[in-house]
Amino acid sequence: LTKQEVVNRILAGRKQKPGKAGRSFAAANIALCKYWGKRDDELNLPLTSSLSVSLRTKGTTTSLSVSERADEVLVSGEPLSPESPVHVRMRGYLDLFRPEPGLGFVVRTESNIPLAAGLASSASVFASVVLALDHLFGWKLQLPELSILARLGSGSACRSIHPGFVEWEAGRAADGMDSHAVPLPEQWPELRLGLLLLTTQAKPIGSRPAMKRTRETSVLYAAWPAQVEGDLRNLKEAIRDHDFERLGRTAEANALAMHATMISSWPPVLYWLPESVEAMRKIWALREGGLALYFTMDAGPNLKLLFQASDEARVAAEFPGLEVVAPFGGGSVKS
Amino acid sequence: LTKQEVVNRILAGRKQKPGKAGRSFAAANIALCKYWGKRDDELNLPLTSSLSVSLRTKGTTTSLSVSERADEVLVSGEPLSPESPVHVRMRGYLDLFRPEPGLGFVVRTESNIPLAAGLASSASVFASVVLALDHLFGWKLQLPELSILARLGSGSACRSIHPGFVEWEAGRAADGMDSHAVPLPEQWPELRLGLLLLTTQAKPIGSRPAMKRTRETSVLYAAWPAQVEGDLRNLKEAIRDHDFERLGRTAEANALAMHATMISSWPPVLYWLPESVEAMRKIWALREGGLALYFTMDAGPNLKLLFQASDEARVAAEFPGLEVVAPFGGGSVKS
Repeated sequence: LTKQEVVNRILAGRKQKPGKAGRSFAAANIALCKYWGKRDDELNLPLTSSLSVSLRTKGTTTSLSVSERADEVLVSGEPLSPESPVHVRMRGYLDLFRPEPGLGFVVRTESNIPLAAGLASSASVFASVVLALDHLFGWKLQLPELSILARLGSGSACRSIHPGFVEWEAGRAADGMDSHAVPLPEQWPELRLGLLLLTTQAKPIGSRPAMKRTRETSVLYAAWPAQVEGDLRNLKEAIRDHDFERLGRTAEANALAMHATMISSWPPVLYWLPESVEAMRKIWALREGGLALYFTMDAGPNLKLLFQASDEARVAAEFPGLEVVAPFGGGSVKS
Repeated sequence: LTKQEVVNRILAGRKQKPGKAGRSFAAANIALCKYWGKRDDELNLPLTSSLSVSLRTKGTTTSLSVSERADEVLVSGEPLSPESPVHVRMRGYLDLFRPEPGLGFVVRTESNIPLAAGLASSASVFASVVLALDHLFGWKLQLPELSILARLGSGSACRSIHPGFVEWEAGRAADGMDSHAVPLPEQWPELRLGLLLLTTQAKPIGSRPAMKRTRETSVLYAAWPAQVEGDLRNLKEAIRDHDFERLGRTAEANALAMHATMISSWPPVLYWLPESVEAMRKIWALREGGLALYFTMDAGPNLKLLFQASDEARVAAEFPGLEVVAPFGGGSVKS
C-alpha cells in the first residue's frame, strides 16, 4: 500500500475545494516509551507501541494556503531553498493532498522550540500541517484519521494530535488503519519536564536512517520489543497511580535501552556528546542525594528532565537556563 | 560445587610441600570478544565464550613464599592493609591452597600496567599468582589446569595463561572442567594495541557486580549470546585471514554491544566519561578520513586502540602519550 492510497481512503467523500487559508497549532511530544523501529517504511508503521506526554504550549503553528505557483515553505518567516531537505520532504508530503496537479501550497511554520536537535523533532511540524490542512479544506476529519495522516508525515507526529499522555498503538493491519494515537484520560498537574539544551547543532544522522540502521544491524535490537512491553505496562500503572518514581525510572531506562540499541549498531550511532554524559552523571549524583530527578533522551544529544512541581526550584537552580514545561498546566508549586 | 572441591580435584596426588619461593610473570589480556555474564558465580563460569589477545610484556610479576604469620600482600612493594578489598580477595583465594591451616603466604606483585582502571583488570594478577603457586609447590600442572585455577581467582585471568590470541571456551560442565583457555595458533606481528589512559581513578562499580546487575536487569542482555556467537565467528575468520578491518570492526562492535547491555541495566551502568565519548568521536572521525583505526573498551572508561604497524606513527601523533603494544613482538614498522 502507498501513502497516497491511504490518504485517498481517508479523504474519500470529503471536500476537495480549499478555503482561503488554514491555520493550526500542534504541541511537541516527548516519548516516555520510545518509538524506535518500523515494520513498514512507506507508511511509518512501528514495530512497537509507544507512549508520550505533550508539551502543551511548546510546538509549532502552521499557516497554509493554496497558490498558483510552486510550493513555498517558510520557517519562522525565512523561505527555505527548494533544495533543502526540509523543503523536499514537505513537498513530498504535500503531494498527497493537492486538489489539482500543478497547484502549490504556501506553508509557514513557527516553532517555539528548537528543531532538529532532538528536542522537538518533526512531530509538531507534521501534526500542525495536518491540522492546518483539515482547516484549509474543511474536511472535519476524526482524530484517529488526523493521527494517521500525521503519521504518514513523521511517525511520532501521530501522537502530537492529542494533549496529555498519549499512546500510539502499533496496530497490526497492513494498511495501518489501526496504527494511530489514543489519548490517556489521566491528568498529572504536578508533573514537570525540563528541556536541557546542550547544543543546537544539527544531528550527525537523522532519526529515520538511524532507526533503520539499528533494525538492520543491531543484534541487541531483537530484545527491544520485550523492553517496550514491560515499560508500557509500568508507565501505564505509574500514570494511573501517580507514582512518580516508577514513571521516571521506567522512562529513563527506556531511553537508555533505545540508545543502547543504537550504540550496538554498525556503524555505531552515538548521539551523546561529552556534555550529555556529564549531564547524566550530574542527574545520577543528584538522585543519589535524594532528589527525585530522572531524564529521557531522544535521537539527539539533549536531555529532557522529569521531576515534580515540588522540586522545581531545586532542579532549576542546578540547571541554569533549563526550560521548564508543565504538561498539564498549573503554576509552579514553591518547594 | 565449591572452588575448594575443584582445587582438590586438580591438585589430587600433587606435591603439597612448598619450596622456598615461587615466582612468575603473566601478561594482561585484552578481550576482542568480551566475557560479560556468568552462568555460575562461585566458579566464575561464563555464559559465553570469549576471545582475547595477550599484551605480551605488559602484566604482573608475582613472587610467593610461605610464612608462619598471617598473609601479607605487597603491591609494588607497598604492604596492603588486611582490610583492603584486594587483600581480602587475595586471602580468600589463597585459602584454597594452604598446605596447612594457619600457614600464611607472602605475596608480592609488580605490575607494569595501571590496575583497577579497566586497563589490566585483575587478570594478570591472578594468572601470575597461579603460575607462582605452581612454581612454589612444584605441581607442574598442565596448562588447562592452570587456566581453571586462574579462572577461580578472576574469570578473565584464565586467558592470561597463554600468549597471543586465546579463546576461553565457555564449556558446559557443572564443575567447569571444560571451561578454560585455549591458545589460537595464529601469529600477527603487524598488529598493534594502543592503551589510551584517560583516567586512573577507581571505577564507580567493579566488573563483578556490574556483570551481575546486567544479567539480572537488562532486557537487551537476552540477545548478548547471539552477539557473541557472530562476533567469535567473525574474529576467528579475521585472524585466520589477517583481515584487519574485519578484526577491528568486530572488536569495536562487540565492546559497544557489551557497554550497551550495561547502559540498559538498572540502575544504569555507565563507565564512560565525557573524555571517553570525545576519544570515540575522534577515532570515528579519523576512520572517516581513511585511517584503519578501531577501539575496544572493557569495564572502565579507558580505550584500547587497534591498528596496524604501518599506521603506528600516525596514530601515535594523534594520541600523545599512547602506550603502544605489539602483542606478537616485532619492532615498529615505519609508515
